[in-house]
Amino acid sequence: MPALARYLPVLEWGRAYGTTTLTNDLVAALIVTIMLIPQSLAYAMLAGLPPEVGLYASIAPIIAYALFGTSRTLAVGPVAVISLMTLTAAGSVAPPGSADFIAAALVLALLSGLILLLMGVLRLGFLANLLSHPVISGFITASGILIATSQLKSILGIEAGGATLPDMVRSLAANIGDTNVPTLVIGAASTAFLFWVRKGLKPLLVSAGLRPRTADLLAKSGPIAAVAASTLAVIAFDLEASGVKVVGQIPQSLPPLTVPLFDPGLWQKLFVPALLLSIIGFVESVSVAQTLAAKKRQRIDPDQELIGLGAANVAAGFTGGYPVTGGFARSVVNFDAGAETPAAGAFTAIGILLAALFLTPLLASLPIATLAATIIVAVLSLVDLKKPVEILHYSRPDFIAMLATIGVTLLVGVEPGVIAGVLTSLVLYLWRASRPHAAIVGRVPDTEHFRNVKRHEVITDPHVITIRVDESLTYLNARWLEELVLETVAANPAMRHLILMCPAVNAIDASALESLETINRRLADAGIDFHLTEVKGPVMDALARSHLPQLLSGRIWLTQHEAFKTLTGAQGPAPAPGSPPDVAAAAG
Amino acid sequence: MPALARYLPVLEWGRAYGTTTLTNDLVAALIVTIMLIPQSLAYAMLAGLPPEVGLYASIAPIIAYALFGTSRTLAVGPVAVISLMTLTAAGSVAPPGSADFIAAALVLALLSGLILLLMGVLRLGFLANLLSHPVISGFITASGILIATSQLKSILGIEAGGATLPDMVRSLAANIGDTNVPTLVIGAASTAFLFWVRKGLKPLLVSAGLRPRTADLLAKSGPIAAVAASTLAVIAFDLEASGVKVVGQIPQSLPPLTVPLFDPGLWQKLFVPALLLSIIGFVESVSVAQTLAAKKRQRIDPDQELIGLGAANVAAGFTGGYPVTGGFARSVVNFDAGAETPAAGAFTAIGILLAALFLTPLLASLPIATLAATIIVAVLSLVDLKKPVEILHYSRPDFIAMLATIGVTLLVGVEPGVIAGVLTSLVLYLWRASRPHAAIVGRVPDTEHFRNVKRHEVITDPHVITIRVDESLTYLNARWLEELVLETVAANPAMRHLILMCPAVNAIDASALESLETINRRLADAGIDFHLTEVKGPVMDALARSHLPQLLSGRIWLTQHEAFKTLTGAQGPAPAPGSPPDVAAAAG
Repeated sequence: MPALARYLPVLEWGRAYGTTTLTNDLVAALIVTIMLIPQSLAYAMLAGLPPEVGLYASIAPIIAYALFGTSRTLAVGPVAVISLMTLTAAGSVAPPGSADFIAAALVLALLSGLILLLMGVLRLGFLANLLSHPVISGFITASGILIATSQLKSILGIEAGGATLPDMVRSLAANIGDTNVPTLVIGAASTAFLFWVRKGLKPLLVSAGLRPRTADLLAKSGPIAAVAASTLAVIAFDLEASGVKVVGQIPQSLPPLTVPLFDPGLWQKLFVPALLLSIIGFVESVSVAQTLAAKKRQRIDPDQELIGLGAANVAAGFTGGYPVTGGFARSVVNFDAGAETPAAGAFTAIGILLAALFLTPLLASLPIATLAATIIVAVLSLVDLKKPVEILHYSRPDFIAMLATIGVTLLVGVEPGVIAGVLTSLVLYLWRASRPHAAIVGRVPDTEHFRNVKRHEVITDPHVITIRVDESLTYLNARWLEELVLETVAANPAMRHLILMCPAVNAIDASALESLETINRRLADAGIDFHLTEVKGPVMDALARSHLPQLLSGRIWLTQHEAFKTLTGAQGPAPAPGSPPDVAAAAG
Repeated sequence: MPALARYLPVLEWGRAYGTTTLTNDLVAALIVTIMLIPQSLAYAMLAGLPPEVGLYASIAPIIAYALFGTSRTLAVGPVAVISLMTLTAAGSVAPPGSADFIAAALVLALLSGLILLLMGVLRLGFLANLLSHPVISGFITASGILIATSQLKSILGIEAGGATLPDMVRSLAANIGDTNVPTLVIGAASTAFLFWVRKGLKPLLVSAGLRPRTADLLAKSGPIAAVAASTLAVIAFDLEASGVKVVGQIPQSLPPLTVPLFDPGLWQKLFVPALLLSIIGFVESVSVAQTLAAKKRQRIDPDQELIGLGAANVAAGFTGGYPVTGGFARSVVNFDAGAETPAAGAFTAIGILLAALFLTPLLASLPIATLAATIIVAVLSLVDLKKPVEILHYSRPDFIAMLATIGVTLLVGVEPGVIAGVLTSLVLYLWRASRPHAAIVGRVPDTEHFRNVKRHEVITDPHVITIRVDESLTYLNARWLEELVLETVAANPAMRHLILMCPAVNAIDASALESLETINRRLADAGIDFHLTEVKGPVMDALARSHLPQLLSGRIWLTQHEAFKTLTGAQGPAPAPGSPPDVAAAAG
């Protein structure tokens, strides 16, 4: 059943499952579970949701992805940027934390899942290409700054709001007087500890004789140490009484079965946010999955990934979760811990399930400031301020698109930021595509090669002008080609033959074909014959189905050399440069 | 003052103006004026406006274009498709013919003028490229069908409505019982006469000894004959009493000075229609202007054309007109009648002005059915049903875009039709751009040429695989390239070197650069060196500003031949096909 196996990759890897693989997967699952518990709580909080929602979003979605996804090691669950987008989108219909807000997050997960499934079935994964790397990089950097800033209030123990950077900063500044000192101490200590764990602990462990991979995995469990230490501190010194905010009672329960509201008005409002969130999540997830797959010479199928992630989000919508995607940090941990198949993901899901059932009472006194610290340390690693400089150095249009993304994301919001980036990239791309490179060429003496007259000493003829276009001819540049030809005609009054040299033309669409016919007609009106040379095979096949070959006043030549030799030879010796154009009578 | 002359082309042609030119321009102006009078009335009626508005729209706009436009012979004024779009757009805010509707038409002209001016100043003319030829052609055909159908009610002398084809047909069918026989006689006779004038009169005149050009110009004045004859018939037989609707009293006046309403709500509602109407008008006008300019080896400047048309529409907004553009029929008449400079346009404006002042009383008894006949005959020549078949034959994606445009225009409306066409073309373009042509190549024996392994008998090596990409590397295909490489790696377990051959790569944007770095990293993880060959000069210059040359595990080679020879030579003899991949240990 190869067709079924294509949509259900589990059928393939499941058959070869053995004891060694099982052991490896179980070890990886244990490590990932430990890492995921604080992360899931923290991201749910970032999204404005109760902490248990983060745990629920890490159970059913993982299993759904394990069944339908093509990556062996991708770990699906809540991630920072998607959590921020959920906060913004659900926050536009209800206040964060309210019952309506939680309902909106479920709808968002279901809608996002359906969009991904639909894109997968229609094989529309290529639309994710509209997010260029500079736009994604800019968006992630800007989101990282927004997220880190939004967590400062929890570190300081104050109330503050705002959805844009200026609003957040204003709100923080207005309320900084209310800072709660014990909270600040816990928050600052956790942040400093987690930064040290990230940067300083691993080298220390390695120098103490641990293997680098083990040292790395130990360092990655830093957040659990911070969670344990700060929770114990709260209990030991009764810091709750001093105003330190804690997570509080988390219900001990299996993920609830939820049915997302079917409210057409709500669906309509959430459609665009869900679409953006789906595409961003997909792009992130696929690039992580591809990177990991490449290390083992495996492949993932991006269109099937849409189905895997779509199933994961639908599962999140029906089990009290919120939008999820393949996360970078957890996937790398899963990979490094030795996960071999998606079964590791399923075991992780069981681990989190057990945590949701039995560990939650231990988390009641966990300070919010510690979770904020884990978020800040995680997202600041996403902020890359060197990238814009590099890109400015390499490509101006890419830099403009990146700057537009960062600026609009910080100053207006996450959704307008993504849209601004996509539109800026697209307009700049279309602008460049509408004016490709072209050159007037002449023959290099004693060869059959033709080169740009502006860069080389070449043989030309005032009667026979050759234009070489270095791009496929499409509707985006068809009008440009017409103008280029008119310009060339106006600049070469003695011209009798115009040759379009097409070695780099990979396609000619219907608009460009019509432009070639127009050019041919206009040139004929001006007494000039129009020729094509070096037309590629597939392009020639297409042209043969059109009227152009019959209409053409000139010919289609196999080689430029042959055309140039024949046309210049028939012309006789070239007249002196100043001589009157002898074709003027034919014009008009 | 070359800079000033650039924005005011009149400074250039005005200096060389002499008596011969004056005579030619005056003769052309007289002929165009005669043709324009019935056309202007008819198109104003089509747009749902009082007939005099058509005359006003043919006075100040022509003069504004004469000052700022770059075409010597383009004739600006009301045209069929733009009139239909005006009816739709202004009709969405007020009932046709009402004072609010007329006010909306003025706002539409002003807005459209401002949009065109802004696009001209920002040199955004390339955005018009988004309208591919099949989309324009489909839109004009569909609009022609809509317009002709909308005029049937005037030919039948009945009331009918509807904005989409099915609605129009239903409404006509429901009211056909009210047909007014005298109106139908006049309408049918006018239509038949005008068709005959178009097809039969010219050959007759030519065979009677007239020169073809004169015969053509005489045939083009057919509408004036129909107008005169039917007006006389109405007066002679007092057909108004029998229910034949006539134009009625037209005020005898100079164009009024009008100030378009500045109502932000109205401007916002009309913005998108004005934008679409501007771009469609611009595309039509530029293609007419280019065709005529080419006949005299002149050039037009599309960005300056935006300014010329923008000025014309602003002028229309302030002098009681409605949106205008360069019309095909009138421009050809102007050209054929011998117009040499935009002064001919100015003289035409004076002619129409005199008509508005003195001839309007003669038009009071002109039957509406005759105007409807002139519209039907004019627009049916725009309907091209052979084109879709031709395009289907040439290019499937272009046909899909055309079909979407025609279908949506007929069944939903003109604005959704244009938008559907633009989006369909764009999505199909992006789809193709996201998966360009690429081939694995090998060396043709005894040559330095490399060709597709699937099409030619070539020399390959299991350790050294070469991929040739026939397209620039951009963000649209960056992810495709990553996948292609991963696929190739998975399919060639013995690979030690991967060469990307770039003779057709005209650019590498920042996304593609990052993908190349990612590919390089992933290949290194799998123990494979990554090489580039035949990188073009400008692309190499850009790469030199990036980190890629330092990061690259392999090298950037000048020629593919050198790279292949060196890498396969260093490798020793190729192992037998079945031998175990000797780089597997390096993977993962």
